[in-house]
Order: sequence, then C-alpha cells, then structure tokens
Amino acid sequence: MNNLYNKKNINNEENVMLNVYLSGEIHTDWRDEIINLCQKEGLDINFSSPVTNHELSDNCGVEILGDEENNYWKDNKGAKINSMRTKKSIEDSDVVIVKFGEKYKQWNAAFDAGYASALNKSIIVIHSDDHQHPLKEVDAAACAVTKDQGQAVKILKYIQQGNL
Amino acid sequence: MNNLYNKKNINNEENVMLNVYLSGEIHTDWRDEIINLCQKEGLDINFSSPVTNHELSDNCGVEILGDEENNYWKDNKGAKINSMRTKKSIEDSDVVIVKFGEKYKQWNAAFDAGYASALNKSIIVIHSDDHQHPLKEVDAAACAVTKDQGQAVKILKYIQQGNL
Amino acid sequence: MNNLYNKKNINNEENVMLNVYLSGEIHTDWRDEIINLCQKEGLDINFSSPVTNHELSDNCGVEILGDEENNYWKDNKGAKINSMRTKKSIEDSDVVIVKFGEKYKQWNAAFDAGYASALNKSIIVIHSDDHQHPLKEVDAAACAVTKDQGQAVKILKYIQQGNL
Amino acid sequence: MNNLYNKKNINNEENVMLNVYLSGEIHTDWRDEIINLCQKEGLDINFSSPVTNHELSDNCGVEILGDEENNYWKDNKGAKINSMRTKKSIEDSDVVIVKFGEKYKQWNAAFDAGYASALNKSIIVIHSDDHQHPLKEVDAAACAVTKDQGQAVKILKYIQQGNL
Amino acid sequence: MNNLYNKKNINNEENVMLNVYLSGEIHTDWRDEIINLCQKEGLDINFSSPVTNHELSDNCGVEILGDEENNYWKDNKGAKINSMRTKKSIEDSDVVIVKFGEKYKQWNAAFDAGYASALNKSIIVIHSDDHQHPLKEVDAAACAVTKDQGQAVKILKYIQQGNL
Amino acid sequence: MNNLYNKKNINNEENVMLNVYLSGEIHTDWRDEIINLCQKEGLDINFSSPVTNHELSDNCGVEILGDEENNYWKDNKGAKINSMRTKKSIEDSDVVIVKFGEKYKQWNAAFDAGYASALNKSIIVIHSDDHQHPLKEVDAAACAVTKDQGQAVKILKYIQQGNL
Amino acid sequence: MNNLYNKKNINNEENVMLNVYLSGEIHTDWRDEIINLCQKEGLDINFSSPVTNHELSDNCGVEILGDEENNYWKDNKGAKINSMRTKKSIEDSDVVIVKFGEKYKQWNAAFDAGYASALNKSIIVIHSDDHQHPLKEVDAAACAVTKDQGQAVKILKYIQQGNL
Amino acid sequence: MNNLYNKKNINNEENVMLNVYLSGEIHTDWRDEIINLCQKEGLDINFSSPVTNHELSDNCGVEILGDEENNYWKDNKGAKINSMRTKKSIEDSDVVIVKFGEKYKQWNAAFDAGYASALNKSIIVIHSDDHQHPLKEVDAAACAVTKDQGQAVKILKYIQQGNL
Repeated sequence: MNNLYNKKNINNEENVMLNVYLSGEIHTDWRDEIINLCQKEGLDINFSSPVTNHELSDNCGVEILGDEENNYWKDNKGAKINSMRTKKSIEDSDVVIVKFGEKYKQWNAAFDAGYASALNKSIIVIHSDDHQHPLKEVDAAACAVTKDQGQAVKILKYIQQGNL
Repeated sequence: MNNLYNKKNINNEENVMLNVYLSGEIHTDWRDEIINLCQKEGLDINFSSPVTNHELSDNCGVEILGDEENNYWKDNKGAKINSMRTKKSIEDSDVVIVKFGEKYKQWNAAFDAGYASALNKSIIVIHSDDHQHPLKEVDAAACAVTKDQGQAVKILKYIQQGNL
Repeated sequence: MNNLYNKKNINNEENVMLNVYLSGEIHTDWRDEIINLCQKEGLDINFSSPVTNHELSDNCGVEILGDEENNYWKDNKGAKINSMRTKKSIEDSDVVIVKFGEKYKQWNAAFDAGYASALNKSIIVIHSDDHQHPLKEVDAAACAVTKDQGQAVKILKYIQQGNL
Repeated sequence: MNNLYNKKNINNEENVMLNVYLSGEIHTDWRDEIINLCQKEGLDINFSSPVTNHELSDNCGVEILGDEENNYWKDNKGAKINSMRTKKSIEDSDVVIVKFGEKYKQWNAAFDAGYASALNKSIIVIHSDDHQHPLKEVDAAACAVTKDQGQAVKILKYIQQGNL
Repeated sequence: MNNLYNKKNINNEENVMLNVYLSGEIHTDWRDEIINLCQKEGLDINFSSPVTNHELSDNCGVEILGDEENNYWKDNKGAKINSMRTKKSIEDSDVVIVKFGEKYKQWNAAFDAGYASALNKSIIVIHSDDHQHPLKEVDAAACAVTKDQGQAVKILKYIQQGNL
Repeated sequence: MNNLYNKKNINNEENVMLNVYLSGEIHTDWRDEIINLCQKEGLDINFSSPVTNHELSDNCGVEILGDEENNYWKDNKGAKINSMRTKKSIEDSDVVIVKFGEKYKQWNAAFDAGYASALNKSIIVIHSDDHQHPLKEVDAAACAVTKDQGQAVKILKYIQQGNL
Repeated sequence: MNNLYNKKNINNEENVMLNVYLSGEIHTDWRDEIINLCQKEGLDINFSSPVTNHELSDNCGVEILGDEENNYWKDNKGAKINSMRTKKSIEDSDVVIVKFGEKYKQWNAAFDAGYASALNKSIIVIHSDDHQHPLKEVDAAACAVTKDQGQAVKILKYIQQGNL
Repeated sequence: MNNLYNKKNINNEENVMLNVYLSGEIHTDWRDEIINLCQKEGLDINFSSPVTNHELSDNCGVEILGDEENNYWKDNKGAKINSMRTKKSIEDSDVVIVKFGEKYKQWNAAFDAGYASALNKSIIVIHSDDHQHPLKEVDAAACAVTKDQGQAVKILKYIQQGNL
C-alpha cells in the first residue's frame, strides 16, 4: 500500500509515472548519475533535461536562424529556443531537481528554480556547503536540500515507493 | 449509458480512471479496506496515499538528509519530503477521501482537506458521530460525509458506474 | 491533413480523443442517439454523462448515506454526490453538449452550461425553437445552437475529421 | 473585533466593501428590497445587477447595432451585450445572490449560478419551497438557501458585522 | 527605502496596506493582542477574522435560516454561512496567521491553513512546543512558526517597515 | 541524455509527444511540408491544424445549422464552429507555429498568436522579410521567427532530440 | 437600480470604474472620439491605450536602448517595450475595444484581440463592412461588432448606466 | 491621449499607479537612483523593494524567532521571513526591475526573475556587458535589458507617459 500508485492498480492499468526535470549545470555527468541510480532502484520516473551539449546549446540560435554580429542577439536567439524546451519540461514536471556546481554563475539554474516555485512545483536543490549562504532564498523555496545526487535519488525512491 | 465513460467507448479506447487520494490517519488499515472493496466491485480506480509506515514517515527527513538535534528541524525535514508526495497526489486526484480516526490530533488530515478544497477537488469525509461538531467546517466543504469505508465505496461505485 | 490529429501520427501513436460531456434532460434517449450516430461515423470520442437513471439519481443520497425526513436534505445529499460526477465530467471535457427538452425546469442543465462557460469549454446547445427566447443567454455562450442531435453530431464530425 | 474589517482599521483607512451581484428575475423589486434593508442596517456593500428594464434588456442589441429579421439574432445581439455587464459583475463580486421567482424559465439565473460556482464565488439562492426539487443542483452549490430577501440580508449582515 | 511601499510614494499616493487574516481559536483574546501591538508599532495593516462570538458562530445557521432537529444539519447551515466570510478573508489576505491553542480539536484552523497554502498565501503559525509534532505538516507549509503573538507582530513589522 | 524524454525511459514507458498546432494560412501545403520533414527526421510529434479545406471552412456553419441571408451571420456560425477545433488545439499544444503567407489579411493567424501568447505557449512564427515590420508585435511574442518551414522543423528537432 | 454600481452606493463609497483598453490603429483620432463621446454622456470610464505617437512607438527601442543596424532587432526592442504597456492595459481592462481601420496590416490589433479573448475579456470590435469576411474569427470572439465609434459608446453607456 | 490612464480621467478619478518591484543587489544605492529619477520626471509609480539593510536581512530570522547553532537553519528562518515580503511585492507588481551588480552570486535576483516570469510580469534587467553571456536566459525572459538605471527610468517614463 505504500506506492504512490500501486504497481498494478485494481484494474491492471499501468502506473502513473513521476516526471522529474533536471535543471542546472551541464559540465558534469550528474544527470546520468541520477538516472542510473534510479534505474538500479527500479524507479518509475520520466526524466527531462535541457540540451546538455554546451556548444550546441550556445550556438543553436545562430545555427538554425542565421548569424548575428552582436553576441547579445546570438545569445538571445539561442536562449529563446532553449526556453521552449525548458518551459515544457518544468510545466510537465512533478519535481524539479536543481543542481548548483562549483563553477560559473549558473543564473539560469536559479531562474528555473524561481519559475518552478511560482508554478508550485516540488523542488530539490543539490549544492555543496560552500554555496549555502548565497543560495538561502533558493533553498527556502525547496522541499529538500541535498549534498549530492545520492540523497536526491533516495528522496525520489521514498516519494514513489514509500521506503528507503 | 450510466458509466462515467463507457467501459469500451465507441472506438475501443481504454477507460479514463478515477484518481482517488486517501488522506488521513495511518494507524488502521482503512485504506486497504476501501481498495479491497473497490476491487470486489470491479471499480476502475487509481488510488494514491501518503507513506503509511509511521516510523518511516516520521524519520525520512533525518534518515536521508542527516541528523538534527532539534526535533522541530527533524520534523520539518520529514514533513517537507512527505509534502512532495501529498501535493502531487492531491493535485492529480479527482476525489480526496479524508478519514478522521478516534485518536490523535490529525491536523494534517484537516490541512489536506483545506488544500483539496481550495483546488476545487471533490471531498468525501469519513468520521464517527463523536467528531461531528469539531469537523463541521471540514464537513461543510465536502460532497459527502460518511460513517465508514463502506459508504465511501458505495459513492465511488455510484460515481463511476451509476448504480448501487 | 484535415483530422484534428492524424489518424496515425508520424510516430504511429494513438489518436487523442475528443472528450464530450452530455448534459441535460434524462427523460429521453438523446444521449444514445448521439453516441450511436458518432459510432456510425467512426468518430473517436469519449462520452461522459450524468447518471441517467432518474430514480437512482434522486435517491442516491439517502440510499447511501441514510434517510432524511426533510426533502431538502434528501435532495441536498443526492445533488452533492451527483456533483462529484458532473464536476469531473465537465472539467475533463473539451465540448459540453447541453440538451433542453420540452418538459421540466431543467435548471441543472443551465447551471452546467454556466459552469462550463466559466471554464472556457466549447458548448453546443440543443433545443427547439420554442425555447429560443428564454435560452438566449445560454445560447449566447455557445459555439453552436442546434435543433436536434443530428446537427450536434455533424459538428463533432466536422471538428474531428474536417469533413461533413 | 467582529467586523470583517474593523470599521476604522488601525491606520484609519477606509473599509473594504463587500461586492454583491444580484442575479435573477427582473419582474419584481426584490433588488430594491435587499438594498433598502442593507441601508437600514448600515451595511457597507457595493451592489451590482443586470439591467432591470426588461424591454431595454431585450432590445438593446438591435437598438444599438441595427435590426434583425430573425428573432434568434436579435436575442443573440442583446444577450451578448448584456453578458459584458454580467461577466464583470460576477467576476468582481464576493457574493452572488440568485433569486428564482414564481414565473418564467429563468435559465439565465441558473446559468449565472453555474458561472459563479465555477469561479468559486459564495452563492446565496432565494426561492420558495415550490422550486426546491428542481433547484436541488443549484442549491447544492450554494452557501445558503433562503426563503426571502430578509434572510439573505441577515446573512450579509452577519458576514460583514458578525452579529444578527 | 525599507518600507514595502514608501509611506508617501513619489506622487503622494496613499500606502498599500497589508491584509492579514487571523485564523484559529476564538476562546482567548489573541487577536486583540496582535491588533493592539500592531497599533502601538504604527503598522499599516488591515485585519480580518472569523466571527469570534462562539455562540453566534455556532447558531447563525439556524437563527437565520430556521431550526434543524439534527445537529449535523444545524452545524452544516452555520458552517456554510461562516465559510462565506472565511473564504473572502483568506482570498483577500497577503498573510494568514493561524493560532493553535491548548484546547479543542481546532480542525478548522488546520483546514484554513491548507486552504491558504493551496492559494500560495504566506502563513505564520502560532503554537506552543507541546503541539510541535502533530503540527509538523502545517508548520512545514508556513513562512514562520512563532511561540506567541509578540513574535508574529515582530514579523509583520519587519515585513512592512524593514526594521525590528 | 539529450532527448526531452529518453526514447525509452528507465521503465520502458512510451515517450511523451510534443503537441504542435499549425496555425495560419490554408492556401499552400506548408503544413504537409513540416509534417513530412519531421517524419523524415523521426520526430515524435503530434500535429493538429485547422480544417484546411477552404470552402468547407467557410461554409460549415450554414451547411450544418441552416442558411443565412446575411453574410455576417453565415460567417459567424462558421467561425464559431471552427473556434471549437482551434481552441482545443491551442490549449493542448506545447508549441504553436504560425505561418503568415504573402496574401490575404490573415487576421485569424494573428488572433491565434495572441491567444497562444496569453496561454504562455511557445510560439514559432514563419514569414518572409516583407512582413517584418507589421508583424513586429507578433514576432516579439515568439520564441523564434523563421524564414521558412525548414528552419521551423530544425527547431522542433533541436527541442525534441537536442541535436541539429 | 440600473447602474452597474449605484452612483453613490448605500454607504456613499465612490463608484467602481469600467476599465477600457482601446486597441488598434493609431492613424486616426478614433480614441479621442470615443473618450469625448463618453465624457458628454457622463460615463465613469478609465481609458488606456497604446502610445499613439507612431514615430515614437516605432523608435522607442533604439532611442532608449541604443541603435541597431538590423531593422528586425530595432523593431524587436521597440515592440518588447510597447508590450509592457499593452499587457498591463489588457490585463487591467474589463472591456477591450479593437478598431480595424482601412489601411495597413494591423496584425497587432488582431493579436491583442486574441490575447484579450484568452483572458476572457469582453471585446468590442469596430470595422467597416469591407473587412467582415477576413475578420470573422475575431468577430466571433467579440461581444459586439460595431460599424463606428458611436455604436461602441452606446454599448459602454448601456453597460454602465443601463439606458440608451 | 498618450498616458496609460489620462491624468484626470473623464470623471476626475485618480490615476492608476504603476507598481514596480526593485529586485536584486542591496549593496549600492541603485534603488534610490531610480526612485529619485522617477520623482524628477513626475512619474506616478509605487515602488517596493526587499529589506535593503543587509545585516538585518541576514539576521531577521534568528532575531525574531530565536538562535540557531547551524547556519543553514539561521539562513532558512531569515529567508522564509523575507520571502513573505518578496512574494507580495512581485505578485502586486506590474513591472519587476532586476539589477545584477558586479559582485556576489546574486542567485536570489535570478530566482526572483524566474518567479516573476512564470507569473507573466514585465521584466526589466539591468546589468553590465560583462554579465551578458551568463545572463542570457534571464535576458531572454525580459522586455528590456538596460545598461544602467537611467535607461530603466526612461522605459518607465515611456510606458506611463508615452514620451521620452
């Protein structure tokens, strides 16, 4: 009786999946780590993520729509196209996991967290202790703040299966 | 013609299920009673529930995210994680059944009822006559107030199948 | 290219169905007429309707929850239970068809139309010319006002298949 | 301490008014009766109502926008213009009072009640016992069902002033 | 620059007030305590509250709408009327303060908290340490959990004036 | 890891499709061009479109509901019926592609774009350079402005597959 | 009793105004015509409009934020700034009047109409008979279609004062 | 005719003000600069801002609610209280101005921008060229990206007064 939805409900319909959006830095393989851990645990989760090919993510606007001399407009075109994927992913998600890494500004991660918060999504934040103070407003909007991917997966497992 | 959606619609698509969240006390097996009764009636219902392992529900926060000396923060961590499951369950539900037992404060059950009411969900409340006066505001927000699980199942059957 | 969604889309997924709620009088078999006509046309529609067994619809409250001396409370209990089915049906629907027959007050039909209108659902009203003037506010909220079930089915066919 | 907002709040700002829309039949002077009773009680209420000049209400469409040979279109033009006033009034209201009189179909009153219900407005219904059964679905969506204007005013007084 | 809105903005418009709903037990004078403390601090706050005359609150339904033999319906009529005031108060509020006292079930307070939470209102909970564990789900939905009225007023002052 | 949802998620459920509404002119075969290009790319997209048979689209109202002498009412009946399909299509879509051709007023295309924008849908506009200035408000609401169907398909591919 | 809100309500509060946004072409003085006519009628209306200085409207982006070589980005900057005013105006309005003149594409007017329609605003369209067919989808979303400013003012008067 | 609302509308009501929230860094006096510039221009704007006393903002949680040994909980308490002010400010605003300074992580600023974006608020971003690339996702959600406070004020003036 502990599953969110019983594996096979009383009429043998399929399970409802948990939709999870993986927001944040794209320079390490933390997303694969989460997905692999969930797979090992047999979790029933539908993951989405931004395009994680950094070069492609930066250049998609000018590659598709034509060059720009000004970097501002190059970035604007690219960010607008990427926003189509991000918006759908956040709106369709039940849980948004936002990972803050050690490097870079990562303002897009904080922006996603704010967007998800206004839509009343459940948020899990992952960051090291070093970032604790500057991330306090983001953490305060979260359902859980974890130190690593393993803790985040334990939460997903607990939410879906009701055990640890 | 009485089913909410005909068992097999005119194009042989599958039925739309009724999603029901079972909120409230976790010290008796009332959820299993409802699910079993629905199964006997052949109802097409997708049930969700909070984690009903009481000890796990209380300790999930510190087990996953690390110990706390202060009970307030221990409970805060746990309640925040449990809220991820509750929020999804209520938002996805068509009907929320809230059971008030004889013991304990059960403020989370009343909180769930208020949350469900603001989202315009159909609410069924189960409680004994003893609780009638203090539950009057919760009852007033409900579509039905029943004395036991059997009555609640009869309502679900009537809603889905159009018969008693 | 005229189908709302191509019968088989480019990845061979199944069609998205049109959800239609059939609101209004329950003394004639107009719902079966619509469903049968749609079946003949091969339409891909998921119909829902209120409980059309009049006696059961009137008595469900006291049958399930216990007798009332006062007819007001008997009707209140029944109407509250029926509202659970109506609310889900309207909220899940794309189109609400409201049929006004020749007899009875049918205030529940007009209530459903107002509820559907506030939720921005597409409304088709069916009524004879006799009711034209008193139904002018309901008609003004509709996408189409038809004289009979046949016209309503033609509209459903046109919306789904793009032909007549 | 019983007023919804203290007559003069702690910074001497003015009171927030209660907005009440008076929906329903326009053949008797029930609206004036309510407004006068509220005035006597010193209530702080902002009333709105449909255009109560029956002839004008019926003819406004063709008077302003030009004649129609077909009564359906004459009524459609008028009802569309009247809907602008009704929509604003219901959306701005805190409470919608819907009066059902003895005569006429009054489907627009039931339509307004459904519209208000979907917007989660508090509804007070006024009708005689004769209409109890056919109005059961409308009554079930209401916060109070009264027999006359006097009872409705007592409710408004109680809500605003906290006394009888 | 610390005021939420400068006392006199650059065009000498009046201040926007903070709307605060005071939910919870009606057996002590905690609401007056908060209002008086805010007045001493010169805060610009518009308070609303339920009807705090306990007897009147219990009897309003039958006093206005007529007697009931069954206590359930007596309470239902009263709670439905009281809900009109509560709903408007919560929906109009920026902050909901929910006080849990030492006695009684107070399920209406927890219900209000759930309702406010679903509407994304800022919640302040007041309770003693004794209630910490059973209120953990309510506390987890709050922006602040205070031990007494004084702390709650300090928060209101800080929010409005930006000082302590 | 670049797909919006992995082709086969960790529990082997089917992919979530992208829903795309193709709004705008119906005099060229630009919709087929997009659908065919997406098919070649193996994209998992569910397309919807208005009825593209121009004569049928113009005449559906009078064909189904009866003749009108006045062209205004003929067009009103037809447009109302077509709006049922358009409304569902836009509301169900993740992305709305609006194509402005060289001829005609195409105010319905701009209307659809405004409707989609208010619902926070991602919009792709297709038009030639000639229309750049008069379409500036529509373009400003879009995530991408393309010169042809090929660019639009590249965007859909990038959003769904994360590559070019 | 015919006013939307009585000129002086029973507690002598001020009237609630009607907010009207005047969307559409900026090459004739139709807005002044409407405002002057309303003033003569003593109507209590709060008008808003886009910036009607055409050159300024086109150049505001580059004037404020710096030059662009490419006209697309010049227009994008300007349209984005103008959208701030338009969005607030439409969202705050009760009624949106959209005027289509004889010249230009006026896609922004149709876009505004679609935006307003999705927000469930009451729409009045003004256009000559020549534009009847291409505007049929916009007209179908309107509460009234008028031939000139005078008719639109008569509607505003009727809505606010309940007379002609 | 260029004002958003004419200074004195036709019934001599007061102007509707523009509500602007000033989000972002609190280490320079950029808010005063904007407010002073608007005052010089005679703009009719209601500004709100976070508590700009940095030490108070960091310590408000423990100062009001009691000490914490762990910095995480100290920050959590403070951020939760500050969120009450931020949430109201953003929700009440028409325009959110987000300033990114040269120092610090400023993730709260990006979070506010995401929150405002999901609520469909008009956003103006202020930052230097150095931050252009890492802020591309935030900029893409904005109506204008300015280099300094002066440009932001010009936009506010243009929006409200329709001139430069």
